[in-house]
Amino acid sequence: MDHGKRVAILSPVAWRTPPRQYGAWETVAGNVAEGLVARGWDVTLFASADSITSARLHAVIERGYEEDRSVDPKVAEYLHIPEVFEHAAEFDIIHSHYDFMALAYSRLVKTPVLTTIHGFSSPQILPVYRKYRDSYFVSISNSDRLAGLNYVATVYNGIDLSLYPFNARGGEDLIFLGRIHPDKGVHLAIDVARRSGRKLVIAGLVQDKAYFEEQIKPHLDGRKISFIGPVDVAGKNELFARAYALLHLNTIPERFGLVLAEANAAGVPVIAMDLGSCREVIADGVTGFLARDAVEAAMRLDMVPRIDRAACRRRVRECFSMETMVEHYERAYATVLESEAKKVV
Amino acid sequence: MDHGKRVAILSPVAWRTPPRQYGAWETVAGNVAEGLVARGWDVTLFASADSITSARLHAVIERGYEEDRSVDPKVAEYLHIPEVFEHAAEFDIIHSHYDFMALAYSRLVKTPVLTTIHGFSSPQILPVYRKYRDSYFVSISNSDRLAGLNYVATVYNGIDLSLYPFNARGGEDLIFLGRIHPDKGVHLAIDVARRSGRKLVIAGLVQDKAYFEEQIKPHLDGRKISFIGPVDVAGKNELFARAYALLHLNTIPERFGLVLAEANAAGVPVIAMDLGSCREVIADGVTGFLARDAVEAAMRLDMVPRIDRAACRRRVRECFSMETMVEHYERAYATVLESEAKKVV
Repeated sequence: MDHGKRVAILSPVAWRTPPRQYGAWETVAGNVAEGLVARGWDVTLFASADSITSARLHAVIERGYEEDRSVDPKVAEYLHIPEVFEHAAEFDIIHSHYDFMALAYSRLVKTPVLTTIHGFSSPQILPVYRKYRDSYFVSISNSDRLAGLNYVATVYNGIDLSLYPFNARGGEDLIFLGRIHPDKGVHLAIDVARRSGRKLVIAGLVQDKAYFEEQIKPHLDGRKISFIGPVDVAGKNELFARAYALLHLNTIPERFGLVLAEANAAGVPVIAMDLGSCREVIADGVTGFLARDAVEAAMRLDMVPRIDRAACRRRVRECFSMETMVEHYERAYATVLESEAKKVV
Repeated sequence: MDHGKRVAILSPVAWRTPPRQYGAWETVAGNVAEGLVARGWDVTLFASADSITSARLHAVIERGYEEDRSVDPKVAEYLHIPEVFEHAAEFDIIHSHYDFMALAYSRLVKTPVLTTIHGFSSPQILPVYRKYRDSYFVSISNSDRLAGLNYVATVYNGIDLSLYPFNARGGEDLIFLGRIHPDKGVHLAIDVARRSGRKLVIAGLVQDKAYFEEQIKPHLDGRKISFIGPVDVAGKNELFARAYALLHLNTIPERFGLVLAEANAAGVPVIAMDLGSCREVIADGVTGFLARDAVEAAMRLDMVPRIDRAACRRRVRECFSMETMVEHYERAYATVLESEAKKVV
């Protein structure tokens, strides 16, 4: 690898980088910046002014627009994104985490732009991706791809394994961790718990209030099925320590599924719906099981003791660690730079 | 003037250019394009695909997002605006009517960008204008300016005088024409009508429903004070033919005030509030009168017969015709191109 290269990381400015709590895109942008600095790259992070980074920080927006309502999101976007392009000549590569909006500037500069697509928020944005399909893209799972785009790699999001200590034994409870939203299948986790007779602890932010009131709350008895609200890393580890398995029965294709990797890192086997990226994050029969519905998920629970908890952590270290993510981004950059070099010739 | 120059006109894509009904920015963009074509310029209009123009049309958005709800405004914006910049090398000048958003691309191309600021929609957008203050700007009135921007001219919006035939005599009624909104002072027009004993006919689109219900509707008696809803050009001319004077008692600074010029074009004197651009559009004592409040406006009504109706039309022809607007834009372009030429040296 050429470690003398200059890279610009364009983070969103919805939240601080890294975010205080939520903000998955800013988290990844911040982690990539940190990892590249550690590996000797010359890194400039374009993010909100209150961001914390080992990279050089370039900021024109004081605070994330989700954290400071006096900041107009559209104005912030139109001040923040052009900055990296106006400084394009100072970089060998621009790595954008700013959705389709940054693409609109990409043909106006000579510096190649690599965009990590953290998810397609709506079918309406696809025409922008299609217009700029010859740019360079990274998908965060093989399943979350739009046909026709010039993908140079899939780079899985990486977690900091030191945050999730390995637990060799675990416990007897089922756990659910994630947003309380029908997409995440919390109601299916409850169904599985009922079928198995095991306790279920549900943790997460209520995103869909009606769903929570109608489909979750009536089942909460504080004994078999309980809800503890959002949890931080310490809270997650407490749950992992008592977990027999994590239930992740998503009802729409998962884009990546960070919590699956976090659970595996702590040694917790995962029962996940076979939708979207779950079969990439979970090795079926090795770090958990894939299921097609709640009935199948309940059946797989009996097979959980066959899972080697140490193998779960090992696989996360290999595939979903920050170090692996950064290495894979380095390779993606190399691919982009080689491709650009050929263009010039 | 150098008429061999290539100009790109960037119209918004909220509405078709020219709009079927509403859409002041698209109207001006379309008129400028038509006028420049007539004067021998090589004009490319960037607008929605259903636009009608004598210029070359460059379109990637099928229909205006205000007319076709299947079009996402943000996606349309991010597809439409970059087009003109990606083709910048084909133009000697880019004339943007697309608010602050187009400025974000302006430093990434060599072609100079002239932005007509049709109004500052909120104080929150000012930081973008301030960042790009060294670009080139046109204000639509001397009053609607932001200090510190590199203004090259004020160019008043021009109207097509053939649409508003001159009426030498007029009538006895007061008329109000405009959006039914507190900013437009419809309630003050009613107050003035009451004080004068004259009939008042109110025409326009109800934009603020609560305002209409609470402050306008209770005064409508179908005899002295009447409301006829929105009117087209023919409807405007019917009103002008019966008008003693147009009342325009805006409560916030007017940015330009097209209807004042339209009334004057038909020979109708205007009583306008002395706020914003009104004192630029109306020559006090010549084409109407300025007032500081409703009481003063009512007093000025007695002086209306002193106004020479032919002088009203004459002044519109000189100052607010499409021909004058296009000529003034040609001069503004010349100023920009001369300034650019100096930079190169």
